[in-house]
Amino acid sequence: MKTIVVRNIKRTEADLVKRLGALGVSTVHEAYGRFGLMKPYLRPVWTGAEAAGTAVTVLAQPGDNWMIHVAVEQCRPGDMLVVGCTADNTDGMFGELLATSLKARGVVGLVIDAGCRDVKALREMGFPVWSRAISAKGTVKATPGAVNVPVVCAGINVHPGDAVIADEDGVVVVQRKYATDVVARAEKRHADEEGKRRQLASGVLGLDMYNMREPLAKAGLVYVDEAEPE
Amino acid sequence: MKTIVVRNIKRTEADLVKRLGALGVSTVHEAYGRFGLMKPYLRPVWTGAEAAGTAVTVLAQPGDNWMIHVAVEQCRPGDMLVVGCTADNTDGMFGELLATSLKARGVVGLVIDAGCRDVKALREMGFPVWSRAISAKGTVKATPGAVNVPVVCAGINVHPGDAVIADEDGVVVVQRKYATDVVARAEKRHADEEGKRRQLASGVLGLDMYNMREPLAKAGLVYVDEAEPE
Amino acid sequence: MKTIVVRNIKRTEADLVKRLGALGVSTVHEAYGRFGLMKPYLRPVWTGAEAAGTAVTVLAQPGDNWMIHVAVEQCRPGDMLVVGCTADNTDGMFGELLATSLKARGVVGLVIDAGCRDVKALREMGFPVWSRAISAKGTVKATPGAVNVPVVCAGINVHPGDAVIADEDGVVVVQRKYATDVVARAEKRHADEEGKRRQLASGVLGLDMYNMREPLAKAGLVYVDEAEPE
Amino acid sequence: MKTIVVRNIKRTEADLVKRLGALGVSTVHEAYGRFGLMKPYLRPVWTGAEAAGTAVTVLAQPGDNWMIHVAVEQCRPGDMLVVGCTADNTDGMFGELLATSLKARGVVGLVIDAGCRDVKALREMGFPVWSRAISAKGTVKATPGAVNVPVVCAGINVHPGDAVIADEDGVVVVQRKYATDVVARAEKRHADEEGKRRQLASGVLGLDMYNMREPLAKAGLVYVDEAEPE
Amino acid sequence: MKTIVVRNIKRTEADLVKRLGALGVSTVHEAYGRFGLMKPYLRPVWTGAEAAGTAVTVLAQPGDNWMIHVAVEQCRPGDMLVVGCTADNTDGMFGELLATSLKARGVVGLVIDAGCRDVKALREMGFPVWSRAISAKGTVKATPGAVNVPVVCAGINVHPGDAVIADEDGVVVVQRKYATDVVARAEKRHADEEGKRRQLASGVLGLDMYNMREPLAKAGLVYVDEAEPE
Amino acid sequence: MKTIVVRNIKRTEADLVKRLGALGVSTVHEAYGRFGLMKPYLRPVWTGAEAAGTAVTVLAQPGDNWMIHVAVEQCRPGDMLVVGCTADNTDGMFGELLATSLKARGVVGLVIDAGCRDVKALREMGFPVWSRAISAKGTVKATPGAVNVPVVCAGINVHPGDAVIADEDGVVVVQRKYATDVVARAEKRHADEEGKRRQLASGVLGLDMYNMREPLAKAGLVYVDEAEPE
Repeated sequence: MKTIVVRNIKRTEADLVKRLGALGVSTVHEAYGRFGLMKPYLRPVWTGAEAAGTAVTVLAQPGDNWMIHVAVEQCRPGDMLVVGCTADNTDGMFGELLATSLKARGVVGLVIDAGCRDVKALREMGFPVWSRAISAKGTVKATPGAVNVPVVCAGINVHPGDAVIADEDGVVVVQRKYATDVVARAEKRHADEEGKRRQLASGVLGLDMYNMREPLAKAGLVYVDEAEPE
Repeated sequence: MKTIVVRNIKRTEADLVKRLGALGVSTVHEAYGRFGLMKPYLRPVWTGAEAAGTAVTVLAQPGDNWMIHVAVEQCRPGDMLVVGCTADNTDGMFGELLATSLKARGVVGLVIDAGCRDVKALREMGFPVWSRAISAKGTVKATPGAVNVPVVCAGINVHPGDAVIADEDGVVVVQRKYATDVVARAEKRHADEEGKRRQLASGVLGLDMYNMREPLAKAGLVYVDEAEPE
Repeated sequence: MKTIVVRNIKRTEADLVKRLGALGVSTVHEAYGRFGLMKPYLRPVWTGAEAAGTAVTVLAQPGDNWMIHVAVEQCRPGDMLVVGCTADNTDGMFGELLATSLKARGVVGLVIDAGCRDVKALREMGFPVWSRAISAKGTVKATPGAVNVPVVCAGINVHPGDAVIADEDGVVVVQRKYATDVVARAEKRHADEEGKRRQLASGVLGLDMYNMREPLAKAGLVYVDEAEPE
Repeated sequence: MKTIVVRNIKRTEADLVKRLGALGVSTVHEAYGRFGLMKPYLRPVWTGAEAAGTAVTVLAQPGDNWMIHVAVEQCRPGDMLVVGCTADNTDGMFGELLATSLKARGVVGLVIDAGCRDVKALREMGFPVWSRAISAKGTVKATPGAVNVPVVCAGINVHPGDAVIADEDGVVVVQRKYATDVVARAEKRHADEEGKRRQLASGVLGLDMYNMREPLAKAGLVYVDEAEPE
Repeated sequence: MKTIVVRNIKRTEADLVKRLGALGVSTVHEAYGRFGLMKPYLRPVWTGAEAAGTAVTVLAQPGDNWMIHVAVEQCRPGDMLVVGCTADNTDGMFGELLATSLKARGVVGLVIDAGCRDVKALREMGFPVWSRAISAKGTVKATPGAVNVPVVCAGINVHPGDAVIADEDGVVVVQRKYATDVVARAEKRHADEEGKRRQLASGVLGLDMYNMREPLAKAGLVYVDEAEPE
Repeated sequence: MKTIVVRNIKRTEADLVKRLGALGVSTVHEAYGRFGLMKPYLRPVWTGAEAAGTAVTVLAQPGDNWMIHVAVEQCRPGDMLVVGCTADNTDGMFGELLATSLKARGVVGLVIDAGCRDVKALREMGFPVWSRAISAKGTVKATPGAVNVPVVCAGINVHPGDAVIADEDGVVVVQRKYATDVVARAEKRHADEEGKRRQLASGVLGLDMYNMREPLAKAGLVYVDEAEPE
């Protein structure tokens, strides 16, 4: 029904992706109206991993990494591979050999809603992976899925060509059509935060800086001097 | 019903907190009669984190970090912020800006039964956090909770002013009224362990050092030379 | 019924264990026909841990580490302790003192389907542990279990003397009677991978190297130039 | 960014939905190429629930059911409400009052990737709900989301107007454009199964009925008379 | 440290408990300011269970039901036993014999943050239990805990004598000192709901009944006629 | 390596299995020294299910039910099929057609450490299944496993021919060689319980019936009249 590979996709502009990557996941997610964040069970397989790229998407059957092999051919420099599964799975669908192949094509990282293995080698190669598990469990090549169709990965529907930003805080996906707008908002937010950070570091309270005292009182918050006895 | 902020709390003596911190979570938990340990899903967001302080408590609604902003004002040097939620939640209620504000007030760390973000910045600031998840998910400021009331966090009811000890083994909370007694027991336990460590390192068996052979035999344990065939 | 300690067990040959350890978990698991892998919730308690040894097995009741003390006496240099429980448990059954005792006997590591504590000390000692949780929760010594009987640990039935290989990818167990055969297959697989790695690094596609194009077409995979509109 | 309500959506033809509902989730999922199945953590809140309808979709923030109130107005007879959240959540976003309102508009059921409450009342009303949790936890009305945009619910991206089939085996979603095709395949599959059921009931083995003996032998399966001793 | 049994406790008035029970968990939880709800992993072990009583509390060690036996003696007619554990546990701490004993003392039900067994017998006896698991796993009687001290159960700190209300939606605990106030609010809420139910059943929209249209517009919600193409 | 089918297995005597089944899971588990209980995530797919039989074992790859088809041929009246997987899996490996085939051969039930579907049909057929999930997810027939080798299922190593007892409390497995002994102990335990039940129902306390007061005092339990103020 959907066992297809789409060859030509429209990618988010490289400059936008780079700027989103520089801002980081938390800032981009906020600027996107608190949308687009993958579930927090996705974690980098090595500490310090960061990446930003354009999505090449894979829909795989659980325990079957055939489509990842198919997807490699569709990748270009600056892409990020995003793999979703048709059912929950933690098998080790991805490892050193596939990473070697992706690296040879200029791919900047992998996001996979399944397991990953060879994590020591991946760290040594500097190839960043976000996965739901680390597992050596081998997989089959039995059932086709699809490449470059919209794919749900860790709770987010990813379209081919979307901007994918990943760091230690998680993974956020910005749809291509919103990228320009989100970059603008996120850069503004980032600029504003610098001033806030300075104020807070100097001892100004968020209660005052954000003018929270009045709305808190309206919402019914009351200050008392001592706790009543239990 | 409980949307209050209690301004004045009684804190565990700083010297007791310091001594508990030096002993570490596992020793303190044992000396406390195996009570007071938070659930092990709370993990430090960066490797090597250690902290000990007096609890300022926050009861927050899930996905709403308003009360953390309120709590900052109630903190003093040596405090540790402890945040519980009224329902399970992994959203990123805490990040770099709040950490900057807490640090400015001398707060030594955070324990939160929810998510945390900006973990790279927190590691670089050296601000230790124990959380149930790392997540960039943004939060709202919509519903008041409470500050400095007793709060359940990761399975433990924490009173304002309790001693909170946290390291790589987890988080333990000692009630203020028991702190003197627990310090004494824990320091004794710690002193005893040094001798045991030396004995075990020299090859003495725990079976002999702890006189376990007789009670094991009484409990029905039998030694056989060979396994019977299955 | 099973509260026994078996004194004499047949161990996998040390040379085979060493060679399996050098190959790593993922390669051994594949060479073993994709059998023998423990569930991925077992994780090393410190980054970079690796070990390979012969199993001394422990069947423990949850929250009760009595049998671990009993098992120490049965260990020899090159052994690896493997602890299963009769029910799911995350309590801290193992810590620095037991590690000191095992190290004194030449034991190379621990695999435990429960919790572990004192992880900082274990890292400093260089004693590798794979556990399902890090927890300071103390345990009792109330109910006997068994030592050196077949034990289920993280989904795998481990026989005393089996080869246990553990690294950052997880833990795999090879039955003693299959070790010679698995070593041979795994070394062959490892040798083959070097050539594949070179080819993939040079830009050859897995699709071509593994001759996947024809079976994919047979399985119904179709290439299209553009996605149809949703 | 996406805080919109789309008023006019194209719905799958009522006759197709009805026929899919008659076939049941497992058959439809197979006929759809094993795609479209929501994760199995979604369960009916009362035993025996069955429903089939056209999706009206809701994207909600966790712990916030404001958009469900908004969505009611967009519903027509034969619709099924499908609610996804921007983060994992088990709060009780839906209960008797909302069910009363939906029933008044002819809605046939609810699928929600969050919690549900008032389950006794829902059972008595005969209003079917599939949820990830049963929870009385109250929610806020603080942050807008969206209605009738594509929404990820329990791992599946649901488009407004898609056919949603739910029974005791789970929930499957068929995209509107594939519904005609899937009905045809599913009805054929259903017809074939009747013959197979009769054969199997009479004692014919699946091994023979499906001609599996030869491929099993090719795949290396071997029959032995007795187990070798362990 | 806390291995005590408190003999005399102050119980919430029986009439208040009865009225709270008649209102049900969801209504009481809302009237209590959305506080007091236990985590939703607690489920009734048989469909249709409902109970309301005054808490007799038990703090137990995991896998050890000794303190439940101790607690029976402290129970009076109208009490509800509430059992918390010092660590997560699913063992079958409670079954038919203990239920027989509790029933003989007029106890109306059990809430246990651990496992329960003999569920068929419990259903036949009509003794209601809310537990986190159903498990036959046997337990020991090795370590004392406490009876009638404040106990954390499924995320809520329960004081002896608090009102405990449990039904198919979960378990809510109202502190004794707030019971009068919560009953008043909950009965008012319940009365108001009847009118709302009628309106909604007649086709009035919540959007209008709750005057949501203006705040939604202010929050930025926009209505569009057609979705833009993806 | 293990892709074999063992044709001839030794089964536990039918009379012993029947008597164990009459005693129920909790009693058998206790009489077996608190061993042999599968993890409590295995639940009956319909309320009231009970079965006892001799194990025919299946080792399957996740998401692949080929071996279940193979196993049917090895079943005899009175057998119970037990399916373990080489990795965690919730896919719907079993449904109505396979149940029809098993029923035709006199098989009394299924225990599967994976998912099950067609639960409505199974309930109507009266075919009992214990599974870890209900899921319609379809499976492949791609990789051979084994039949009638020892298999780990939900934490227990099951040998072909073992006695498998399952009811609403879970699933317990008694090794063939211990069956006679366990039946004797379990029947004794069952007989003893009747007297205890009568005593407890008449108001005798377990504290007295089991003579717990003295060991509790020795273990340090203290009775106090009033709680001290917090």
